[in-house]
Amino acid sequence: MTHAQQMLQTNPSSAAVDASMLVECIEACYDCAQSCTACADACLGEDDPKSLARCIRLNLDCADICDATGGILSRQTTFEVQMARAALQACAEACRLCGQECEQHASHHEHCRVCAEACHRCEEACNNVLSGLAA
Amino acid sequence: MTHAQQMLQTNPSSAAVDASMLVECIEACYDCAQSCTACADACLGEDDPKSLARCIRLNLDCADICDATGGILSRQTTFEVQMARAALQACAEACRLCGQECEQHASHHEHCRVCAEACHRCEEACNNVLSGLAA
Amino acid sequence: MTHAQQMLQTNPSSAAVDASMLVECIEACYDCAQSCTACADACLGEDDPKSLARCIRLNLDCADICDATGGILSRQTTFEVQMARAALQACAEACRLCGQECEQHASHHEHCRVCAEACHRCEEACNNVLSGLAA
Amino acid sequence: MTHAQQMLQTNPSSAAVDASMLVECIEACYDCAQSCTACADACLGEDDPKSLARCIRLNLDCADICDATGGILSRQTTFEVQMARAALQACAEACRLCGQECEQHASHHEHCRVCAEACHRCEEACNNVLSGLAA
Repeated sequence: MTHAQQMLQTNPSSAAVDASMLVECIEACYDCAQSCTACADACLGEDDPKSLARCIRLNLDCADICDATGGILSRQTTFEVQMARAALQACAEACRLCGQECEQHASHHEHCRVCAEACHRCEEACNNVLSGLAA
Repeated sequence: MTHAQQMLQTNPSSAAVDASMLVECIEACYDCAQSCTACADACLGEDDPKSLARCIRLNLDCADICDATGGILSRQTTFEVQMARAALQACAEACRLCGQECEQHASHHEHCRVCAEACHRCEEACNNVLSGLAA
Repeated sequence: MTHAQQMLQTNPSSAAVDASMLVECIEACYDCAQSCTACADACLGEDDPKSLARCIRLNLDCADICDATGGILSRQTTFEVQMARAALQACAEACRLCGQECEQHASHHEHCRVCAEACHRCEEACNNVLSGLAA
Repeated sequence: MTHAQQMLQTNPSSAAVDASMLVECIEACYDCAQSCTACADACLGEDDPKSLARCIRLNLDCADICDATGGILSRQTTFEVQMARAALQACAEACRLCGQECEQHASHHEHCRVCAEACHRCEEACNNVLSGLAA
């Protein structure tokens, strides 16, 4: 349970895109930031982290961008479409790259399978908001 | 719906405190970071943000510490109790101060009421994990 | 004085672009994150923060993206050019939008003039690294 | 070169502690966040990252807290001494733990030696501001 929906509904400025789509994206960004942070750590705790170096690296990058994008989308005051678009494009790309890498290890490591799921959900949510912005 | 619980269960290192208590705290940290970011923005969008300056300021501080603490608690590898304790104490204090300020405005601004709720949940969750660490 | 250059030189992986250009960009990202955080606060402390709402909002967005990009560029292991490019493009755009807004207030508020300077330096540094990646 | 000093001098609210001490601490926090992020990555790029797992983990934790503390100290509006103290205590402790770990590897890995230096500088700067707050 998060407070994202209530926070959006009580903001004096209304959302620039469909509210339920936006809430989904905000929640997916924070969830993906958490999953990627946890997946980097889980990979580091495996017997051979060297073989997971690319996964750890992309996990850390993806967490950083998801964090930033979740924050930006949480702001409705004087909404700036070019700023939102720049962040969303970077976030969708980060989730795509990280999700792809996690999938390579999904059959060996459950944490990579779960994290790939979080990345895919976030990538899709970012692309949905991007489509909404363009309209 | 977040992936925090699954990420914890699939980590090769087991949790240093009760897992359900830890998941609750991780989720509360990320949720409070989001709520505080959104509340700072909602306050800024009100007619007289000057009167909400202290609320905005504490919201931004609290979001920063909740973000950091959520990340730290998401790591189970070579868990360091002194690091966790330092972060949790700062986070509980930040949530206490920010929640108190938000409550002052709760009757006028719904976003402050909701954010105070997120702060109180997070403060309590941090204190619960702190008690678990001490045991 | 920062340790960014020494950290880059002692990384077992060599930089994917010209090292001095990369160090300049890393330092500019962290500096711009700090300046934007401070400028949002300084605007909030002015007599009429309402008139600076767009500046505060873009400052906070820009700080988030600069923070993320500074972190991503600090990693050299299994460097992924598509990830770097996505972050750098978002960061250059965020700095352009925020710098433009700060400039509007530069004659009235010294903090906006200084922050615009930090944004311009960071935008240019990001574009330089982007050109280096493309080569 | 950073803009931290100019940003502090142009803030409409004056600093709650000695300005040069505060600037030093803000710069040390951002620098330590960068060094720890880079050291985690450099450790991951070494031949045997498994043996550096504790160092990587503490680096990531320390970067998170330094980032948060650097942001909090950058705000002068309605300064809240209890918030600053909570963050500074967590940051000094994180830098102490991480700096100690990095020192263990300083003779084998130059990046750990440099990072330990950044941690020690930041720990000391936090403790100096803490003393100033108490006065």
